[in-house]
Amino acid sequence: MEDTVSQPVTAALLVIGDEILSGRTKDKNIGFVADYLTALGIDLLEVRVVPDIEERIVEAVNALRAAYTYVFTSGGIGPTHDDITADSMAKAFGVTIDVDPRARAILEAHYGPDQLTTARLRMARIPAGADLIENKVSKAPGFRIGNVHVMAGVPSIMQAMMDALAPTLKTGRKMLSQALDADLPESRLAERLAQIQKDHPDTMIGSYPRTNDGRFTTQIVVRSRDQHTLDAAADAVATAIRETLATL
Amino acid sequence: MEDTVSQPVTAALLVIGDEILSGRTKDKNIGFVADYLTALGIDLLEVRVVPDIEERIVEAVNALRAAYTYVFTSGGIGPTHDDITADSMAKAFGVTIDVDPRARAILEAHYGPDQLTTARLRMARIPAGADLIENKVSKAPGFRIGNVHVMAGVPSIMQAMMDALAPTLKTGRKMLSQALDADLPESRLAERLAQIQKDHPDTMIGSYPRTNDGRFTTQIVVRSRDQHTLDAAADAVATAIRETLATL
Repeated sequence: MEDTVSQPVTAALLVIGDEILSGRTKDKNIGFVADYLTALGIDLLEVRVVPDIEERIVEAVNALRAAYTYVFTSGGIGPTHDDITADSMAKAFGVTIDVDPRARAILEAHYGPDQLTTARLRMARIPAGADLIENKVSKAPGFRIGNVHVMAGVPSIMQAMMDALAPTLKTGRKMLSQALDADLPESRLAERLAQIQKDHPDTMIGSYPRTNDGRFTTQIVVRSRDQHTLDAAADAVATAIRETLATL
Repeated sequence: MEDTVSQPVTAALLVIGDEILSGRTKDKNIGFVADYLTALGIDLLEVRVVPDIEERIVEAVNALRAAYTYVFTSGGIGPTHDDITADSMAKAFGVTIDVDPRARAILEAHYGPDQLTTARLRMARIPAGADLIENKVSKAPGFRIGNVHVMAGVPSIMQAMMDALAPTLKTGRKMLSQALDADLPESRLAERLAQIQKDHPDTMIGSYPRTNDGRFTTQIVVRSRDQHTLDAAADAVATAIRETLATL
């Protein structure tokens, strides 16, 4: 009866930028967006990182926007020649792009009309039909076109844009999770975990090996959208950990 | 005359794991692989993160292995039920998969024959025709099949596997780069940078805005495979920064 409400809302993140692929800049946006969407009850199901090449951006955004409820992008919306995200989005959606009066007004108010250089005006280029996304940090807006949300790459600005756009998102039934730490290498738990996963098909049970001071330990994460389902599987995992430790 | 030598060698990284997409684990492998490949003269041109779902892994690896010289994967080769990378690779390549005698011998030597449980033997499942990749940290090997290198997700193990496989890679002419810091917001430099990019078409000039104590500064990165080409463009950028600062 509540199928509409509990229908998963899905998302992909597209990170745009040569600097991430060369290693010069270490990405900080993937983890932030993953946490943010998980907290909202939106399932992030794919991330892609592509270079500052129009054809690659167009191809990626068209693949992702067809596959997921929402796409979020970061990077490439600044004033310089290598900022080609806005033009790439216009191309992906087959719409025109020009200086947007709303974006221009925001930049004029911020810089003053006489300081609104050609370069800065580039940041007001918005594809036709897009809505602006507010940027409280440095003013130049992001935009939403179709189901794609185009944001800056600088983490502080990207985060402010996520806060600005979040109220417009439909959210799903939140994925609940419980983590259990086992002072065991994961191979010791593997057979029991496989059985527990079979016995609790409406959960997702992940096993994540860790190294602590050279010893192998494991974190088991149980996920479900239903609290009772989650609790039952987590109890079974806790029992398996306890009983396995007792045999050592 | 040296076209063969200077032909770019390209790569993609496929990160496999629900835990990265849920935000529970923060990826540390993208930045490491990016740095590592850049140092080898291999251009990392795409990264994808996909969940622990066979269909999604198969689809991604088939797309990437067709498009790039090399593919590297991380995650999903442990002993538990959610480790489905090896089986997914066999499916992607259309080959069989079974316990590999070489991998089994490595695990037997490590655990002792009587401790080689069914779960641990799962780590010896290797697609037919693959070569093993040594794992100095925890022994269970990765593997190479075709142009795809399948590695563990735990960063210390992934890094050891990269060290083990690196000597087998062909490498390109190394991409050189020079970074110039400008105490200016990037919009002040944008027009001159666009002109410098036009004047030096064999370089890639990237402009990366930063926030330092609430002020906007910029790092300009010039890249080229030729030192003289790089120097000429970098000199032009340095002049542009100096002259722009002088006008303020």
